[in-house]
Amino acid sequence: MPVSETSAKSKKIVVIGGGTGVFTILTALKPHFENLTAIVTMADDGGSTGILREEFGMLPPGDIRRALVALSASDNKMLADLFSYRFEEGVGLTGHNFGNLMITALHRLTDDFEKAIEEAGKILVVQGKVIPVTMKHSQLMAELEDGQMIKGETNIDIPQHDGRLKIKRIWLKPQPEINPNARKAILEADLVIIGPGDLYTSLIPNLLVRGVKEALGKTKAKVAYFVNLMTKFGETNNFSAPDFLNAMKLYLGEGILDFAVINNKKPSGQRLSGYVKERAEFVEPDLGNMPLSKNFIPIATDLIRPSGLIRHDSEKVAKVVKMIL
Amino acid sequence: MPVSETSAKSKKIVVIGGGTGVFTILTALKPHFENLTAIVTMADDGGSTGILREEFGMLPPGDIRRALVALSASDNKMLADLFSYRFEEGVGLTGHNFGNLMITALHRLTDDFEKAIEEAGKILVVQGKVIPVTMKHSQLMAELEDGQMIKGETNIDIPQHDGRLKIKRIWLKPQPEINPNARKAILEADLVIIGPGDLYTSLIPNLLVRGVKEALGKTKAKVAYFVNLMTKFGETNNFSAPDFLNAMKLYLGEGILDFAVINNKKPSGQRLSGYVKERAEFVEPDLGNMPLSKNFIPIATDLIRPSGLIRHDSEKVAKVVKMIL
Repeated sequence: MPVSETSAKSKKIVVIGGGTGVFTILTALKPHFENLTAIVTMADDGGSTGILREEFGMLPPGDIRRALVALSASDNKMLADLFSYRFEEGVGLTGHNFGNLMITALHRLTDDFEKAIEEAGKILVVQGKVIPVTMKHSQLMAELEDGQMIKGETNIDIPQHDGRLKIKRIWLKPQPEINPNARKAILEADLVIIGPGDLYTSLIPNLLVRGVKEALGKTKAKVAYFVNLMTKFGETNNFSAPDFLNAMKLYLGEGILDFAVINNKKPSGQRLSGYVKERAEFVEPDLGNMPLSKNFIPIATDLIRPSGLIRHDSEKVAKVVKMIL
Repeated sequence: MPVSETSAKSKKIVVIGGGTGVFTILTALKPHFENLTAIVTMADDGGSTGILREEFGMLPPGDIRRALVALSASDNKMLADLFSYRFEEGVGLTGHNFGNLMITALHRLTDDFEKAIEEAGKILVVQGKVIPVTMKHSQLMAELEDGQMIKGETNIDIPQHDGRLKIKRIWLKPQPEINPNARKAILEADLVIIGPGDLYTSLIPNLLVRGVKEALGKTKAKVAYFVNLMTKFGETNNFSAPDFLNAMKLYLGEGILDFAVINNKKPSGQRLSGYVKERAEFVEPDLGNMPLSKNFIPIATDLIRPSGLIRHDSEKVAKVVKMIL
């Protein structure tokens, strides 16, 4: 018997990640599902977020903000624009993001990061939940293939080193514990989606938090990994889909992933040419080299938007998710 | 026949001023009247507002913000706290007020100061209107009794000169024109309230705008001036109520004021002692020296809160306003 639309709508879906990937998935799922939760990385330390972390000693607000905007159900369109607005003038303000400043002010007013997120969520009329993966402070560290140590998420994300060097391993220092609310959300979920997003700076930093892997192993939820559409210089140069999978499995272990959702539609050369400057390339599905294991299903399908930026298409994502559920 | 509660409730009341005075009056009137409009000075150039004026080339947001908070009808109490929050940390953020930053961001997003106020008003669920007295930039100037020229509102407000020196005259440079929406509000009002507020830095700067005096002369509305409860060092040292009236009439001319609302209840010495440091003193009603003219009614009554800061009491203000209407 096929799962009815109604019951699918009420399924609990948890999206784990950070950056624009979480935004893309939540935006795609919002019209179709009522119980969305985003669990986001607390490893970001660049830009406005990095300044606020340092000056206010708070957890990074940037990934929280993007997820909140994605889940906003407000009729007031200006609210999302405002929350995403970045100041371009002012000695002290340039580069600061308005939504980050709101979360910071609310944090000071409530003295509680989760309460601040809740209050920001009220203002944005958020439908769903946004949960920091951990409530503890830590720094993302990387060791490159030549033995170099890189400190801080932003130095991995925007490499000052030779970005062609492969990342050998990453870890959080000190290793933080999972936020109990994140654990609860994973355990109660029907489906957990990891990604898409920057592999080493948005996705794996969540899995490095003590207790996340364990919760993913324990939950009855299906776990699906959305592989990126494009590689990222400094993180995943030349990676094909199996490379993404292998890296993910290195941190997640065997037996946790139920699905890998892989795009198999190559965008036009013209669209790809827009990515030459940032040295990003199409992720080849390369299904023949996919690591196979018991109960693991790779799903290869057209996932990209028909034109413009090479991003996951909302309708195509929603369709795959409905199929998986 | 007494005016019924219902018809009084729908009367159009315009409050002209700036700073905390406007906030106090609007807060007092909000539960009793449905049609409140604040017309606020655009002369402020200190603190967060001054920095934003200079760096963003925008009109000053501070007085707008205070009036918006006063008129907020949102159930979300956190919203008013957030809008009034001032950052106390961060190299670039210290001293900036969150509400000012919101108006600034909305101004950049809309490229229209009045539209930005409207959008901020939507977020705060404002009941009523907040209107800048002018849409033109200008600077407040003062000449002291010894001939010294002082440039800028904040240098008058927080005197770097000997604050005992009297202000001989003030003007706006260049003299700006009235905002047509402010003119319309004055002309359509049933009652216009000027003050309370800093005489030379919050109230008169509105009257210096070309067209304000003319609109006040033309409107069928009654015009009431709420005299301050306490003097202000650098502006109104040793002023009694008649001194406030005389200064006001110097800029407003004869025949415009219908009422002066004067507090005649002296607070306890203990309460007054809290004001010694800022050199503020009780404004003596001194009704015997009140300048009298045709159709002008001075109303002397107890207006102060029973305890705490020496401020206008909401209920007492509302009662007087209902009486005047």
